[in-house]
Parts: sequence; C-alpha cells; structure tokens
Amino acid sequence: MQQIDLNSDLGESFGAWKMGDDAAMLDIVTSANVACGFHAGDPAGGLDTLRAAAQRGVRVGAHVAYPDLAGFGRRAMDVASADLRAGVIYQIGALQALARVAGTEVCYVKPHGALYNTIAHDERQATDVIEALRLLDADLALVVLAGSPLAAWARSAGLRVVAEAFADRGYTPQGTLVSRRAPGAVLHDAGVVAARMLRLVQEGVVEAVDGSLARVAADSICVHGDSPDAVAMARAVRDTLSAAGVVLRPFCVDERML
Amino acid sequence: MQQIDLNSDLGESFGAWKMGDDAAMLDIVTSANVACGFHAGDPAGGLDTLRAAAQRGVRVGAHVAYPDLAGFGRRAMDVASADLRAGVIYQIGALQALARVAGTEVCYVKPHGALYNTIAHDERQATDVIEALRLLDADLALVVLAGSPLAAWARSAGLRVVAEAFADRGYTPQGTLVSRRAPGAVLHDAGVVAARMLRLVQEGVVEAVDGSLARVAADSICVHGDSPDAVAMARAVRDTLSAAGVVLRPFCVDERML
Amino acid sequence: MQQIDLNSDLGESFGAWKMGDDAAMLDIVTSANVACGFHAGDPAGGLDTLRAAAQRGVRVGAHVAYPDLAGFGRRAMDVASADLRAGVIYQIGALQALARVAGTEVCYVKPHGALYNTIAHDERQATDVIEALRLLDADLALVVLAGSPLAAWARSAGLRVVAEAFADRGYTPQGTLVSRRAPGAVLHDAGVVAARMLRLVQEGVVEAVDGSLARVAADSICVHGDSPDAVAMARAVRDTLSAAGVVLRPFCVDERML
Amino acid sequence: MQQIDLNSDLGESFGAWKMGDDAAMLDIVTSANVACGFHAGDPAGGLDTLRAAAQRGVRVGAHVAYPDLAGFGRRAMDVASADLRAGVIYQIGALQALARVAGTEVCYVKPHGALYNTIAHDERQATDVIEALRLLDADLALVVLAGSPLAAWARSAGLRVVAEAFADRGYTPQGTLVSRRAPGAVLHDAGVVAARMLRLVQEGVVEAVDGSLARVAADSICVHGDSPDAVAMARAVRDTLSAAGVVLRPFCVDERML
Repeated sequence: MQQIDLNSDLGESFGAWKMGDDAAMLDIVTSANVACGFHAGDPAGGLDTLRAAAQRGVRVGAHVAYPDLAGFGRRAMDVASADLRAGVIYQIGALQALARVAGTEVCYVKPHGALYNTIAHDERQATDVIEALRLLDADLALVVLAGSPLAAWARSAGLRVVAEAFADRGYTPQGTLVSRRAPGAVLHDAGVVAARMLRLVQEGVVEAVDGSLARVAADSICVHGDSPDAVAMARAVRDTLSAAGVVLRPFCVDERML
Repeated sequence: MQQIDLNSDLGESFGAWKMGDDAAMLDIVTSANVACGFHAGDPAGGLDTLRAAAQRGVRVGAHVAYPDLAGFGRRAMDVASADLRAGVIYQIGALQALARVAGTEVCYVKPHGALYNTIAHDERQATDVIEALRLLDADLALVVLAGSPLAAWARSAGLRVVAEAFADRGYTPQGTLVSRRAPGAVLHDAGVVAARMLRLVQEGVVEAVDGSLARVAADSICVHGDSPDAVAMARAVRDTLSAAGVVLRPFCVDERML
Repeated sequence: MQQIDLNSDLGESFGAWKMGDDAAMLDIVTSANVACGFHAGDPAGGLDTLRAAAQRGVRVGAHVAYPDLAGFGRRAMDVASADLRAGVIYQIGALQALARVAGTEVCYVKPHGALYNTIAHDERQATDVIEALRLLDADLALVVLAGSPLAAWARSAGLRVVAEAFADRGYTPQGTLVSRRAPGAVLHDAGVVAARMLRLVQEGVVEAVDGSLARVAADSICVHGDSPDAVAMARAVRDTLSAAGVVLRPFCVDERML
Repeated sequence: MQQIDLNSDLGESFGAWKMGDDAAMLDIVTSANVACGFHAGDPAGGLDTLRAAAQRGVRVGAHVAYPDLAGFGRRAMDVASADLRAGVIYQIGALQALARVAGTEVCYVKPHGALYNTIAHDERQATDVIEALRLLDADLALVVLAGSPLAAWARSAGLRVVAEAFADRGYTPQGTLVSRRAPGAVLHDAGVVAARMLRLVQEGVVEAVDGSLARVAADSICVHGDSPDAVAMARAVRDTLSAAGVVLRPFCVDERML
C-alpha cells in the first residue's frame, strides 16, 4: 500500500486582507503549513485556521519566515544567526500556543519563501534553522526540498526530515526544480500535474523538462490554494492519487490518537 | 517572616535600540516581565534576557501588550476580542518557546502599558485577556494593579492573581494610583520610596497624597530600571527590605526545584 | 446644471495582498482616495494606482490613517498630538512624491477609518489633523462627513472643506449616519442606492430610516469598490446620475489645465 | 580657501527608543542625513530634528533605507526594482513634507546601511535608486562612497554626486574602505582621525592601512554621533579643520538665501 502526505501553505490572510481558501484546502490536504506572523498571518486568523485543521484531523506545521510582511517573506535577507535562530523559535512558539488552544499541536516546521530557498543550499542559515529546532524541540520534523543539501544537513543533525515535491513545478533531469525564470518552471494543466504526482508516488520519478525521468524521493507533495484554479489542481491531485489506491496520510502521527 | 516579590519590565530593547539595564535589574528583582515583541523586544534580545534571568534564578513572565511598536504599547487601542485574545496567546507562546530554550519557563503574565491600564477597569478587554490565559494555560498567574476591578474578575474566573504595588507612585486615600496628570503622581526620592515599600510590606499601608494611610494588599512591588536613577531606586528598595528582614522571593515557585 | 464628485478608497492592496478593483473604480469615480502606507498601501502599488488615476484624469487625495496595518486603520487609537500631526504630514508628503512621479498631484486629504470617525467629533484629534494640513499646505482640501462638527472646525480654521455622503449607508432624520450596529445601517440594493443619490443631488435630501426626509448637503459621494457587487453599485450610482443629466466632476480642479 | 562639508546620520530615534545626540551633532555638522522611517525615525521625531537643523542652518538630506526597522536597515535585502524605486520616492516625499513644515527643504539623498553598501557596487539596485531621484527631482544630490562605481553611474545619469569619506574608517591603498572584518577597519583616536581628515582636505590623501597614501576625493566627511565618544571625535574633526582655516560649508546651497 502506497501512501503520501499532501501539504499546503495556509493561514496567509493578514488583517483585512484575505488570501487563499483555507476551508477548501483543508478538505484536500493532510498537513497545513500555517503562517506565523512574520511573512503573513495574524494571531486571530491563525487560530481560526488551526481550529479548522484540528476539526478535520489535518496536522499542522509552523510556516516560519523572514520578518518581512511587505515582501511576503519572498525577499532574500541577510539575517544574523542570533536573530534567525531566535526568530524561528519565536514563530514556532507563537504557533504552538495557538495550536494548543485550537486543540492540536505543531508537529513540524516548514520554512517559507526566501528562507526556504536560501537554506536549501546556504549552510550558515540552514544551520541556524536546524539549531533553532534542536534547541526548542528536537522532535519537530523539518520539511525540506527533496534532494537539497539541507536534507542531509538536517538529518546529520538528528532531525526528522520530510522531503517534499512540488506538484506544479517542472524538474530538471537531476531532480531539482527548474528555475522560475526558465521555460517549463510552472505547470498549469491539472490533469498533467495529477498524473505526474501519481507517477512520483508509484515509481519515484517525474518527467523532467528534457523528457528524461528524474528520481525524486518525496514524503509529501506541496499543493497551492491561492486561486480557484490552484484549489482545483490540488483536488485533482488528491482525487487521482486516491482513485489509484494511494493512501493520503499525514507524515506526523497524532500521538494522542495512538 | 515577611516576604515579597520584586518585579520589573525587562527585555525592552528593540533591534539597534537599547533600553534599560537588564543585567543590573536582574541582580535586584525576583521576577522579570519580559517584552514579547508587540510593544518592545525582539526574539534574540528576549532570549538573552531570559537566559540571564534563568542564570540568576529570576522567574519570568510574559509582558503582553497591544501591537504598537511605534507607540511602545502606551496608546489605548480598541482591539476586537478575537484579536486581543489571540494576540495575548501568540505573545505568551512566543515567549514560552524562548524561555524553554533559555532553560526557564513563563509562569505568569503581566499586561503592559495601555493594555494594563485599560483592563484594570474595562471588563470587555479584561475578559479577553483572562480568557486568553484560561484557554492556553489556566496555571499562568496574572499580575494586576492592587485594588483594581480586574483582580476580582480574574479571581472569579479561577486565575491565580498577583496584586502589585508601584514603588515610585503616589497613592490616593482609596489605595489607587494618583493620576499621572495630578501632583504627587511620581516619587523621586529613593530613600522615601524604599521606606514606603517597607511599610507596605510590614503594615499593608502606604501614606496617601493627603497624608492618610491607604490600605494596599500587594504580593509584588514593581520597580523600574530604565535609567541609572531608576536602577538605584530599585536597589534601595531591595536593600531596605532585606535589611529589615523581609525575604525577597518570587511569587512563582520553580516546580522543577521542588 | 447640477454636478457632484464621486470618490472611493483605492490603493489598498499591500504587498502580496490584493484588495479592490482599482482599475474598474477609476473608470467610475472622479476622485481617488489613495492609501498612504499606514493602514494599507505600499509605495509601488500606490504609484501604480496614482498613474492609473492620472491617465484617466481622476483627481487624487491622501487617505491618511492611524499607523495600524494589522487593524487596517479601523481601531480607535489614542495618538498624541505631536505624533498625529507629524504622521499626517508624513503620509501626505509620501503620497505627494509618488503623485509627482505619476504625473499628478495630491489636492485633498481624506482621513480613513477610525481616524475619520474619531475626528468627526473629537476636537483634539480633529485640531491635530487640521493643523497638519495648515502647516504643510493650507490649499489642501479636507474631505469630511457631511454635517459633522469637523466640518465647522475645519472651515473656521480656513481650510477648504468637502462634505461627503455615503451612497450605501442609512441616514437618521438628523442627517447623520445610522450606526453600523443598528438596523438599516447599510443598503444593499444598487437601484435603491442610485435613486437615493440622485435625489440627494437634485433635492439635497435622503430618506431617513424612519421615512422622513433628512437634509444632507454633500459635495461628494463616497462609493466602495471592495467587491464585485460594490463596483456594480458604484457604476449604478454613476449611470443613474449621468442619465439624469448630473455632471460628474471632481471637486479639485486641475490647475495645470486652466 | 579650502572647504568641506561634514555630514552625520541623525533622527534615528524611534518611538520610546532614543539614539544619538542630535542636538550636539547639529552644532558640529553642516549636513544632516535624517532617517525617513524605514530603518529608523518616526514622523514626530524627524520633525523635531528637521526643526533643530533649520534653526542652525544645517542642510538636510533624506537618509533612505530598506524597509527593515528590526534590522535597522543593515541587512542586505533583495528588493525588487519597482519596490525599491517607489520606496525611495516615498521616503524622500515624506521627509520633504516634514522639512517644509520645519522651514527647510530636502536637498540631497544619502542611502543608509545595507542599501548604501549594496548600491555602491550593485548596478541593478544602484540604477533603481538613481532612477527614483531622477523621476522625483533630478536636482537632488546623491551622497555616495568616494571612489565607488555608484559615483560614475550616478554622474552619467545626470545626477549631482557628492563623494564622502568616513572619518573613523581605515582605507586601503586603492582608496576604498577596509572591510569591517579586517584589522584597521575602525579608528578610535579622535586626534588621529582629525589629523587624517585635515590631510584629506588639504592634500586629497589618507594614509592607508599599509602606510601608503591613498587618493580620496571627497566633498563631504561623514562623522558619527551615536555615543559620547563619537560626538567628541566629530567635534575634534571640526575643530581641527577650523583651526587650520578650512571652511565648513554644506554642499547644498540654500537657494532661498541667494
């Protein structure tokens, strides 16, 4: 029996500004990366998203980021180690408290945006994030880009690593993401995307931009929910996987249910 | 044997801006109210303050505030209940995580500035803060203005209430603070202040602005540390109390030491 | 020949978050209240909105607010006079520079949200805002709630005052707005709203919630654009007025066109 | 007759946090780089600084920065061109309005911190800043690091360029700054610093870290005021220059005085 996790970025509204359809996505995914207030999200909105996740049995992770609301955490920032470590701890802690009130718990951490991209290969900042998790709670899993150097750094530091693939992204023959500036970076056909993800789960490969097969070992698939089309694509991925007998299951077990 | 707690607002630096002499104050107080990032404080600075507190056995509380860095949390804000509750939970959680990493724990909550003043008498916002503590962890103590309606509201909600007096403030015959806009609101003589606090501890009274004696039942005395004079006054309070045999002891017991 | 101005709040997107349909609204209104970054708006987005307004000959004003992004400027804040005055000057200046680059100019100021509501009747904060305009440029017009005390304060201070009515709001017999907490506060039928505004322009009255006729002297009508329904209502107001021969004309004349 | 300008970063307090001794520095310098709220400064504090500068005849410039209060604008940020250009325009405009109210005017722009360092050599971001000035007001002078590529880029774009030297920094034989991570980066002896600056003005050279003489063509000398020692050093530079007959004169002429 094959299984996989589906994760998505949620809780990204901020004050009067709404983003994404959290309710729709929580009916699709098994893990919710919830914004912690540094790039998006506010306390009350985060609590609502966490409660909705808890009601559906969707597991939650802290979607930690650089402190950059105006840039949505998408701008590379040269944050000093002490600030990066403490900032990650702060964000996780804030979400942990909201999660406790919502009747759930933070079981993993997924860096967001520019922080995600930077620590995939920048060892200094990667070490800061890894150290933050180790200092706070070494049982927290870290979601990383499948095949990135970060995966090895985090594993050798003793963290549980969850490798993820991106449903709507093109891959190089080496199994890395095609740069957003290059052709084929983003896929738009829901049927194609869903079929690719089924093959990823069943065979461990995705067709790369050059037509070759790239090996991608993923524990989770990231789907987006920031537009009606994105929600439809996420649902197509879920339905295609389910129809083929793939079990959709969060990588975090709820220990209270054992 | 008489005893009392001394508390002070710490961790109020922000980024490149320094405020107060945390190291000096941590040698004086028994409880440190640590800023959580909404009115002051940043993650790395908060972690430093928490570590310094832990090293000295000073207990720590979350100094929660309105989200207003530019106004240092001193401006009244009409924050909706959902935002106030979740905002308090968020701040406590963020500090809890930093405290865990620092080897200590958040054992109480003290609202700051305009939030402190507002909930002393505004039942709607008071209820929001009380509810935030009950939702997150009903064992968290709440530090309140001695004699304020908030004390009764929090007690009837089942919270542990810690009443505090202000060392450098004038009192009315009714045992409430003299308004900052009225004469006698703030005392500047360290010797006078220290003698007043000794009498408070020994007899439960302070001399009011009209010369009468006001009854003030306090579990803790708040001292300031934002200037060299303030630090000297705090030290005078501590030394006078100690010399008279008053035991300075945090109101939060460290359960790990039992 | 009767004429009126139509104004709307625009430029309210922030970073990754979009709000409203500025392009659609700029085809409807004659004056655009552009957010200045304190409650909404960012420099690049504001510049885009200003350019789009300039292209269409829509006049622009500074939509100044309390410094409260998380609360969208809708929360009452007890801002000190020095901060309020300088904050208003700062916002106007920032928008003036963007407007100059966009090929237009800021010709009026409209306070937003809680600041708008507060200064309609709070003389201290009203005086601060009035003083800010006088200090910076006494030729800036101030948009105020028709019938509010602010209108008189601003006129007696020598400012040009533009009184506005709200297309979708219910009115009391005294010509003031029905509280949002009371029945009849907000109207949803575009046809009804359009007909009311035509009568306002032609007869100077609106039907109040009790069926009586309230006198409302307005130089401008505020329409909203934050939803497709709101845009449709704004268009209905414009079309109804135009069909009746009312000229839609900005209250600010473009002096460069004289 | 030799002459030079002395400039310093001022208006860097923020809310409750004080930084630097603006009054003391305004008695020393001829040009004040005033923070615009992105890395430091708030509207009311900026207005106070601008008024104090105006009273003393000190000319003022906009000290523009990345939007990063928590990092004091010292962290490299990958800001997109549209955001960087509009952000610089926004900051200048905000300061222009405050300056007008203070009875002075913004006559130059000096980028701060990480933005200063980045655009000294990064052509993309440099072009964005240059373009911002050209779009808003091509008469604004741009203060740049003497000898940097930025100087040439800005000149060829038609901007007036003011090259500055740093009083307390070590220089390489090539006339560039010694990296802060290398020995000799920062000088601490006020007498040595003052003598170096006198030689800079009189001979156009500074002694480099290897003992050779580096040519540095500077129109202005940057002095710091963030500590009592810094203020004393600034005064020493001024006094040494004055005693040698060097005229201290702002590079911006006040056109209203012609």
